[in-house]
Amino acid sequence: MPRPTPEPTPDLSALLRPRSIAVIGASSQAEKVGGMPIRLLRELGYGGRVYPVNTASAEIQGLPATPSLGALGEPVDLAIVAVPALASADVMAQLAANGTRAAVFFTSGFAEVGEDGSRMQQALAQQARHHGITLLGPNCLGAMNLRERMFATFSPIPLSGLPPLGDVGLVSQSGAFGAYAFALAREAGLGLSHWVTTGNEAGLQVADVIEWLAQDDDTRVILTYMEGCRDGERLRRALAAARAAGKPVVVAKVGVTEAGARSAQSHTASLAGEDAVYQAVFDEYGVHRADSLEAFFRLGYVLSRGRRPSRWHSASGLAADSVAPVAIVTVSGGVGIMMADRAEQLGLPMPPMPAAPAQALRGAIPFASTANPIDVTGQIVAQPRVLLDALRDVAECGEYGSVVAFLAAGANAPALWPELQRTVAALHERADSAPLLLCGLVADDRRAWLEQHGCLVFREPAHAMEAVAALARAAAQGFAATAEPVTQPLPQLPRIAADANALSEHEAMQLLAEAGVPVAPHGLARDADEAVRIAERLGYPVAVKLCSREILHKSDVGGVVLNLHDADAVRAAFARVGDAAGRHAARHGGVPVPFEGVVVARMVRGWGELMVGVRRDPVFGLVALAGIGGTAVEVFRQMAFGLAPLSMPRALAMLRESRAEALFAGHRGNPAVPLEQVAQVLVRVSQAAAAIGPRLDTLEINPFIVTAAGPVAADAVITLRP
Amino acid sequence: MPRPTPEPTPDLSALLRPRSIAVIGASSQAEKVGGMPIRLLRELGYGGRVYPVNTASAEIQGLPATPSLGALGEPVDLAIVAVPALASADVMAQLAANGTRAAVFFTSGFAEVGEDGSRMQQALAQQARHHGITLLGPNCLGAMNLRERMFATFSPIPLSGLPPLGDVGLVSQSGAFGAYAFALAREAGLGLSHWVTTGNEAGLQVADVIEWLAQDDDTRVILTYMEGCRDGERLRRALAAARAAGKPVVVAKVGVTEAGARSAQSHTASLAGEDAVYQAVFDEYGVHRADSLEAFFRLGYVLSRGRRPSRWHSASGLAADSVAPVAIVTVSGGVGIMMADRAEQLGLPMPPMPAAPAQALRGAIPFASTANPIDVTGQIVAQPRVLLDALRDVAECGEYGSVVAFLAAGANAPALWPELQRTVAALHERADSAPLLLCGLVADDRRAWLEQHGCLVFREPAHAMEAVAALARAAAQGFAATAEPVTQPLPQLPRIAADANALSEHEAMQLLAEAGVPVAPHGLARDADEAVRIAERLGYPVAVKLCSREILHKSDVGGVVLNLHDADAVRAAFARVGDAAGRHAARHGGVPVPFEGVVVARMVRGWGELMVGVRRDPVFGLVALAGIGGTAVEVFRQMAFGLAPLSMPRALAMLRESRAEALFAGHRGNPAVPLEQVAQVLVRVSQAAAAIGPRLDTLEINPFIVTAAGPVAADAVITLRP
Repeated sequence: MPRPTPEPTPDLSALLRPRSIAVIGASSQAEKVGGMPIRLLRELGYGGRVYPVNTASAEIQGLPATPSLGALGEPVDLAIVAVPALASADVMAQLAANGTRAAVFFTSGFAEVGEDGSRMQQALAQQARHHGITLLGPNCLGAMNLRERMFATFSPIPLSGLPPLGDVGLVSQSGAFGAYAFALAREAGLGLSHWVTTGNEAGLQVADVIEWLAQDDDTRVILTYMEGCRDGERLRRALAAARAAGKPVVVAKVGVTEAGARSAQSHTASLAGEDAVYQAVFDEYGVHRADSLEAFFRLGYVLSRGRRPSRWHSASGLAADSVAPVAIVTVSGGVGIMMADRAEQLGLPMPPMPAAPAQALRGAIPFASTANPIDVTGQIVAQPRVLLDALRDVAECGEYGSVVAFLAAGANAPALWPELQRTVAALHERADSAPLLLCGLVADDRRAWLEQHGCLVFREPAHAMEAVAALARAAAQGFAATAEPVTQPLPQLPRIAADANALSEHEAMQLLAEAGVPVAPHGLARDADEAVRIAERLGYPVAVKLCSREILHKSDVGGVVLNLHDADAVRAAFARVGDAAGRHAARHGGVPVPFEGVVVARMVRGWGELMVGVRRDPVFGLVALAGIGGTAVEVFRQMAFGLAPLSMPRALAMLRESRAEALFAGHRGNPAVPLEQVAQVLVRVSQAAAAIGPRLDTLEINPFIVTAAGPVAADAVITLRP
Repeated sequence: MPRPTPEPTPDLSALLRPRSIAVIGASSQAEKVGGMPIRLLRELGYGGRVYPVNTASAEIQGLPATPSLGALGEPVDLAIVAVPALASADVMAQLAANGTRAAVFFTSGFAEVGEDGSRMQQALAQQARHHGITLLGPNCLGAMNLRERMFATFSPIPLSGLPPLGDVGLVSQSGAFGAYAFALAREAGLGLSHWVTTGNEAGLQVADVIEWLAQDDDTRVILTYMEGCRDGERLRRALAAARAAGKPVVVAKVGVTEAGARSAQSHTASLAGEDAVYQAVFDEYGVHRADSLEAFFRLGYVLSRGRRPSRWHSASGLAADSVAPVAIVTVSGGVGIMMADRAEQLGLPMPPMPAAPAQALRGAIPFASTANPIDVTGQIVAQPRVLLDALRDVAECGEYGSVVAFLAAGANAPALWPELQRTVAALHERADSAPLLLCGLVADDRRAWLEQHGCLVFREPAHAMEAVAALARAAAQGFAATAEPVTQPLPQLPRIAADANALSEHEAMQLLAEAGVPVAPHGLARDADEAVRIAERLGYPVAVKLCSREILHKSDVGGVVLNLHDADAVRAAFARVGDAAGRHAARHGGVPVPFEGVVVARMVRGWGELMVGVRRDPVFGLVALAGIGGTAVEVFRQMAFGLAPLSMPRALAMLRESRAEALFAGHRGNPAVPLEQVAQVLVRVSQAAAAIGPRLDTLEINPFIVTAAGPVAADAVITLRP
């Protein structure tokens, strides 16, 4: 639920579709930073006007030069700036005077070099905002629009060849990465629309470029590289825009591991937040994450060229909103198993072949396997028609979202190819047939023909399955984007004192209870008699716990006594807890702690513990986490994250990802608990945190005891910000 | 510890280096199963003699044919058999009469089609064994020796081109996989020595081919595809032979997931065991596992062409036996982070740059990062010497096992290339320098030059890091193979009654204690008085448990009473447990259970539970498993496996892989326990199981309570086979 933000959606049209470009600091030497863009724009066929600005020369690389922007007499759309950092403020003033709409600052020597640079960069950003100039950089490698042959970069890499024109937009924080990615896209034949590097991000951030590409008609898929993000709200808005536009986003986000994150923090000026939180954001918006460059481009290719799974009916008992099921048809049992392994890892359902086509297949090849993978066996060398009938049958039966066929070298066989063409063309014409993907050796011209007819081709079985999964994810995202968003009202919560750093346990438990979170029956006792009265009312056994806003880790100071079975034990515990508060005060220079009394709580018995919390991420704001509590926290470190307040689907996914769902599955004689009920509790916890609003720092329920009635909060800590 | 096996090491020389080949069922039609090998042998330049055998024609494809092998008058090394299954027994008799040394049976219609086929296959195998004929197949695609241009296959795939000659041997159970792999190896330019498909494996198994390739001078790396293995002992012997020969084995073992394993079981006649057990075997022998075809070939390339890490000294405090540390040198901070992420995932240490070269680098480029990754920045376009000095310094400083450099398109830059050549050549001549791997865009001829000088080249940063890890693993395996094997004598154990199906808890605990496994203090009581005496001796609280060989799941029948604090409670518990035994007998038709009494055991308090066991795998024999017990068993399913008896390194690895090590790390105020001590207990458990010998079916300790003194067995179940 992004809050309204003061920053308007940035307009990149002057940057990426300029009709005129001035190069400030233009050089006659084409290999220089101020020379390369002129060479690229002239040699590679940019159609707009190019104005070299140079105080010393009247001509630069065959173009008439102007001594200053002021002398030009007309406003330009885009200025490419290649002058030292110290001259940047002066240049910005010239741009403002000229009425320039956008600027690319190649110049380094800003935030990446220290304090002074940071100040200059802030001033630059401030000037740009003030004058309404769209600013890219500084310390960046620039931008390109491949369709308009617009090269606002000093990288020589376009000189050695351009990738094909296409509908994949690429945006990279890092220039070096961007240049390498450009070269690899060219090698892979991946069609690009735009290429943007954001460098120090004084003005435009990666998120802004994503948001603009989301509404750009030339772009269907967005590839992005990021080390971190300083403005989570902007990234979320951008990802939401891409999702709403039905444009998949593929991200290479580095800093996954601790070592990587350390490097990311030391590299450039970016603030790398915790990777798991980024992953939660990516999951929320259906972003595809690549863990290698190869996968980055392959996903771009798949999502730009592949057909998404068709709607299927679920004769096999699959939920209608499950991931699209896949049929694997193979001429090799072994490769079929490899593909099935990968499909299972990717969570792709593989229902068996429907009865009628299965019968037809077995009639033709008795030893064929009609489970899924569907093994048509090497027999199809002799009976190619059987394979093609099987492909058509499974693609048209309506029970699969996609069909993958492993043909080995079959598509190159003269006997098979014309028939395969006819089958693929016929399926391509039927909008309701499931998309077909092929895996095997296919000659380049045949591969091109197949792609034109909606059929992607892979050599690697694992890649074919990953393509199916990526397209299924994109399709699911499409379905979700068209659904009505669920708006759950936040609970009304009591006012919190302005000077409080934390709530006491009693306040925290009351707040959770009002938000609809099940809490252990409890009461606040100011004296021993009241403690006993509460215990008798709740029923034994009970716990007695020190209640103070100042002592949050009360068991560390001896402020918790568990398993009390009678009134005497409660009285003794009250005395012990009071002593603990006194000792704590003595250790802290005699400053008395605000001892509000004790919480007397009924002991809750269960068979496991959840750990559920909400904390404030410096980039993305409130983030909920959930996982198995107790020893498992240190052992398995398997917490799942989600943006707070949580949606029900996200809360369910968190229970799955953290494996906490196993606690509710009815193992070891414990009753099963419906997962929806547990997810609803997570949603309510996240709502309670969100209702506290900007004051909330952390909320943690630990232990959250797993009982037959669902999880019950046995203790809660809520800390606040001023 | 493989037992001596009756099967001798198979000799494949007649199969793979035959001087003469007869084709039984030879056909004039080159595309037929009996025609293709003749065409391949003639067209592709086989140097030995080829004898077509055909009852009807005097000439086949230009070669004089003989009507029968008997008419030939000389023994042949190899017979290629392409006749129907029903004629196979007759053919085998002819081969025996001729003195043929090896035979490839292409023929299908054996075990893969059912009972009758299985019987024929058994007879075929029996004949081959009896006559000392090396048998490949039936139902296989044959074999090739690329160096001798020997093509005993009916796959037409060699006609469209051969891969380069090389030192990678490929053996595949599946023919279709083998053919596809051959084509992909050709495309990837991977140099092959031999290619073998084993089909139904009536004679030779994948393991036999591995074992032969391990001693073949033309083969340095072995790639193998398997769906399963029927003879674990043979596979272990083969993998041990490859390890002893210093030849890495790369395996594509399918059936990783449940869906995949189901498919593998339904496909062909192979018995697919549990994947985790295979993984334990692979780990034991340092086998490299590939999860995609692309990785399969890439690992083959890396291990065949790459230099293994040099020995390094460990100034950075790394243990001398740790994985070889890597230096990452990069011109792009972003790609450096990607590589660091992958290095951490692969467990590669990345110590920082030593002081002297770090100072030199910062002197030349003040903003360079001398942590690891070492970011030389884009500055090296202007100062290439700085990069090359840094590469040389880290490769020669002796603190790294390998160096990876990401150069983007740098190696293609005219300014850098000649200098890079000089640096690479100089490093190549120094045997003690760390191997250098490059990542980036490199023109094909330069890439070839670099490879010849010991420097592998990758486009994909992740692949470069995976190469480093694979080579480090191969090197570590080499170090381990040269170490003396640890021979731990098995404990002497009491005799076990011949008719027992299980041990009672008391017997099991005694047996573990004698093997040196810590067990809860306990005693066996036949009456209530004795139970009390034992309890008083052990100290309260105690547990009282029904002790019977017939009732292993005693808590299910009410035969366990825990937490007894005094003599009265012990007496009451004794009575309850006796009643439970009686009720159990009544439910089972009144047959009295052998009630041996009760085990009185001191309650052991700890902060967690291990689950440790040993069971008999149908393929690999005794397999030990370990992991976190209690609820975590169902939740995380994170058991680790090892072949029993365990070695100490394997036991330590199991604690790491299962994450059980976290229980001993001293979290939450619990004391830390040395992992070696825990591993030693696992070793002893596995030795106890091994000492029971072939009678052992399963041994399970659950709970194995985690205490400050290490794990203590609180209960144990041992079941036996006749």
